[in-house]
Amino acid sequence: MKILLSALAEKLGLEYTGDDIEITGVNTLEKAGNDQISFLVNPKYADLMESTRAGCVLTSGPHADKTKRALISSNVYMDLAKIVEMFAEPQGCLTGISDMAFVHPEAVVPDSVTVYPFVFIGANATIGEGTVLFPGVYIGEKTSIGSNCLFYPNAVVMGGLSIGDNAILQPGAVIGGDGYGYAQTPMGHQKIPQIGNVAIGDNVEIGSNTAIDRAALDTTKIGNGTKIDNLVQIGHNVEVGEHCLIIGQVGIGGSTKVGNGVVLAGQVGVADNAEIGDGAMIGAQSGIAGNVEPGSKLAGSPAMPAGTFLRASSVCLPKLPDLFKRVKKLEKELAAVKLAAENGDNDA
Amino acid sequence: MKILLSALAEKLGLEYTGDDIEITGVNTLEKAGNDQISFLVNPKYADLMESTRAGCVLTSGPHADKTKRALISSNVYMDLAKIVEMFAEPQGCLTGISDMAFVHPEAVVPDSVTVYPFVFIGANATIGEGTVLFPGVYIGEKTSIGSNCLFYPNAVVMGGLSIGDNAILQPGAVIGGDGYGYAQTPMGHQKIPQIGNVAIGDNVEIGSNTAIDRAALDTTKIGNGTKIDNLVQIGHNVEVGEHCLIIGQVGIGGSTKVGNGVVLAGQVGVADNAEIGDGAMIGAQSGIAGNVEPGSKLAGSPAMPAGTFLRASSVCLPKLPDLFKRVKKLEKELAAVKLAAENGDNDA
Amino acid sequence: MKILLSALAEKLGLEYTGDDIEITGVNTLEKAGNDQISFLVNPKYADLMESTRAGCVLTSGPHADKTKRALISSNVYMDLAKIVEMFAEPQGCLTGISDMAFVHPEAVVPDSVTVYPFVFIGANATIGEGTVLFPGVYIGEKTSIGSNCLFYPNAVVMGGLSIGDNAILQPGAVIGGDGYGYAQTPMGHQKIPQIGNVAIGDNVEIGSNTAIDRAALDTTKIGNGTKIDNLVQIGHNVEVGEHCLIIGQVGIGGSTKVGNGVVLAGQVGVADNAEIGDGAMIGAQSGIAGNVEPGSKLAGSPAMPAGTFLRASSVCLPKLPDLFKRVKKLEKELAAVKLAAENGDNDA
Repeated sequence: MKILLSALAEKLGLEYTGDDIEITGVNTLEKAGNDQISFLVNPKYADLMESTRAGCVLTSGPHADKTKRALISSNVYMDLAKIVEMFAEPQGCLTGISDMAFVHPEAVVPDSVTVYPFVFIGANATIGEGTVLFPGVYIGEKTSIGSNCLFYPNAVVMGGLSIGDNAILQPGAVIGGDGYGYAQTPMGHQKIPQIGNVAIGDNVEIGSNTAIDRAALDTTKIGNGTKIDNLVQIGHNVEVGEHCLIIGQVGIGGSTKVGNGVVLAGQVGVADNAEIGDGAMIGAQSGIAGNVEPGSKLAGSPAMPAGTFLRASSVCLPKLPDLFKRVKKLEKELAAVKLAAENGDNDA
Repeated sequence: MKILLSALAEKLGLEYTGDDIEITGVNTLEKAGNDQISFLVNPKYADLMESTRAGCVLTSGPHADKTKRALISSNVYMDLAKIVEMFAEPQGCLTGISDMAFVHPEAVVPDSVTVYPFVFIGANATIGEGTVLFPGVYIGEKTSIGSNCLFYPNAVVMGGLSIGDNAILQPGAVIGGDGYGYAQTPMGHQKIPQIGNVAIGDNVEIGSNTAIDRAALDTTKIGNGTKIDNLVQIGHNVEVGEHCLIIGQVGIGGSTKVGNGVVLAGQVGVADNAEIGDGAMIGAQSGIAGNVEPGSKLAGSPAMPAGTFLRASSVCLPKLPDLFKRVKKLEKELAAVKLAAENGDNDA
Repeated sequence: MKILLSALAEKLGLEYTGDDIEITGVNTLEKAGNDQISFLVNPKYADLMESTRAGCVLTSGPHADKTKRALISSNVYMDLAKIVEMFAEPQGCLTGISDMAFVHPEAVVPDSVTVYPFVFIGANATIGEGTVLFPGVYIGEKTSIGSNCLFYPNAVVMGGLSIGDNAILQPGAVIGGDGYGYAQTPMGHQKIPQIGNVAIGDNVEIGSNTAIDRAALDTTKIGNGTKIDNLVQIGHNVEVGEHCLIIGQVGIGGSTKVGNGVVLAGQVGVADNAEIGDGAMIGAQSGIAGNVEPGSKLAGSPAMPAGTFLRASSVCLPKLPDLFKRVKKLEKELAAVKLAAENGDNDA
């Protein structure tokens, strides 16, 4: 793939500075060669604009004059996504439906679908046009998969579920394993069969080895456009809204409701039956155990307003041993003052 | 599956109120239709008893009069488990031993076993009657699997292990990967081969993408009836007792001993060589680094009595910045008082 | 495998005490039989030296006289690794290249490689001599794998990556899934295609169900000799140095740099764009959000010097409710003293 800078600029509706060149790829400011385009967002790295060998730098107006050729964007990441898309080669090396796969005779699999060897598609499953199923993917019976999905190796979608269009499952993702539900009985924990399902919207991406459990009775839901990172755990009956960002190793307990546009940073834990309002942002490693107001910014375990947590934990906590000493000193001195006062002794 | 409420009640040995109807399924109070049974445990949701369309509600005596038909139980979850069991359809759509699987000629696989395509069963492995192995399951050589087990897609059981009856492995669970053991040498970390195994009891369930390591030399053990959630890490040589509940994303370090009936909530971390006594309950995200007395309720990282942690972290920690100000003010005022006293100045 | 103690000692260049016997295996002090060798490192378990039935104990000089036969080592773990290696039997039961595998005609797979059934090897992938690929392993197109690697069942290595010699992937490990990168746009989160790769050095081990993401544009790197435990998440563009130990459930955010010889204990979280200097040691469950000096020992979330954290969290935090009471009492008493002073009342 090669494209003239002028043609690239025209395609994206952007202006550029400097002369025209041929662009053959995208790379970081450190690694880009003189036929590649790079990008700058964070001003912290602005110095690299001068040392980079990149043929052109995609950046916002204020930085454009720091390099010989700039492609000027008001949303660098959005335009970067479009440029990378042009140069990206999809993963994989086969097309068609492999005869080393198992496709149940009662499954519906259009010719436009790619089915690699060792894929299993169960009875009455339906796969949408253009979807690609890599080796080791399992699609359970009666499950419905949308169009243009990409399910990478060893992703598992159990039976009776539905997934929308353009979904991406990274390798090893598991959708629809049983929820964790047991009745306490005199003979021990008795499994409550998990007869519910999972419904995943359009444009959802789910990371490597992430697990999303089927509901006990009704439906675990993931809304349109939500992006879930690797090794995330989502319990049964959870409802996650649209356009959320759920970062690596987050765990969400059963029956919790997460609004739209919520951001859960890495390793956050959310307890069962919690409710997180639209647009809330929860800092890494925080613990949420109740309801979170829309738009809140929380941190800590248990969580509190992020600013409070930062002051309490970063500033105060390390000085806590010293604070105990100061209080002890105050107690001693005050006792001395009181004693002196009692003795009418004002000279000390 | 359809059953008269009267027949259902008789089967479970329960009483019911209202007239008899035909029950065709189970659902939540919000979702149940008038031919479905629902349930109520948490009084917080008692209002739903009035708005639900459910044909009948399984509940305890005190709530029974809030709905037109109630099935009255003294252990709602236990009876719910039994009812759901009646209506549950098992996952999967094949029976028999697929000729797209690999079964080693020296493996012992009775005819009652279901072996899906792309299952691998190694030499001298033995599989118990009625066990179901979904696509992508790996059973290593010399491993012994009990009867009526369900191993979902891509679950891995390495060689030389044993698993009891009625075990459930959710998709992607890994049993018997190597433990994490290295000798520090001048040439770097030298792997200590992990030649031990894993022994899992009866009625154990293991969640999606959970990993349980084989012992270095002897045996990693999981006791009867213990239920392990998704994405849990259990290190080599760990011994977990019977009827424990180990919730999502818990990590247990090597050689740790966990007693019977222990509950480890989500994202708990337990260090190497710890001992947790019978019946201990550890709050979410806690960190355990030593021995825990039987019956303890701990929380925090490092863990302390749960009540203490709650007060210290929920109540006190957010007020810590303010406490520092109060102590500073005390110091100033006390200094002023002392100075005044030194000056014999009592008028200030 | 049987070996005379005298021959074993000679092989390792070690001295032994007591008479010569035949050794048939290795086990713990509790479990070893009288034809097995055991070992002692931790003096805490020295009492077991007297009760053990082990035929011989590998230990350092100071403990050698506590047992009838000792093999004396100045690096017990290193010599243990060598002894266990002698007795270890490799996992697996097949050799050769299975015709139930899919090997792309344009892949390079020497005859010395073992390819189990249900392995997928993509176009232009190259596999080094003696490497073993267990069932369900996926090797993407153009990926290069070194010699003598062991990839256990269902491990996934996506396309365009490189892995050095002697690498071990435990079951379900995923290398080269897409990094988590999205542009915020008016239409929601737009995926930035992840067109970079992953380069893993020699002698690296990667645990069960661990996920290492491909770079956005250039290369995610894992240095020689680094050992990564189970369920670890490593984000895109991360560079991990040589001989690091990264324990279970650690998460490392995108573009972070980890030096050589770093130890990250269990469940540590490292934010995006952090830098951790050589030889740093980070305590379990800690949170790292910025730069860490080489050789630092940190703990806590957010992290602080480990000693400070221990005092602040183990000693002070539980006493915090009491500290608030003490400060309140001080405030009251000081107010009384001031009031008395104002009243010129020194008798109280």
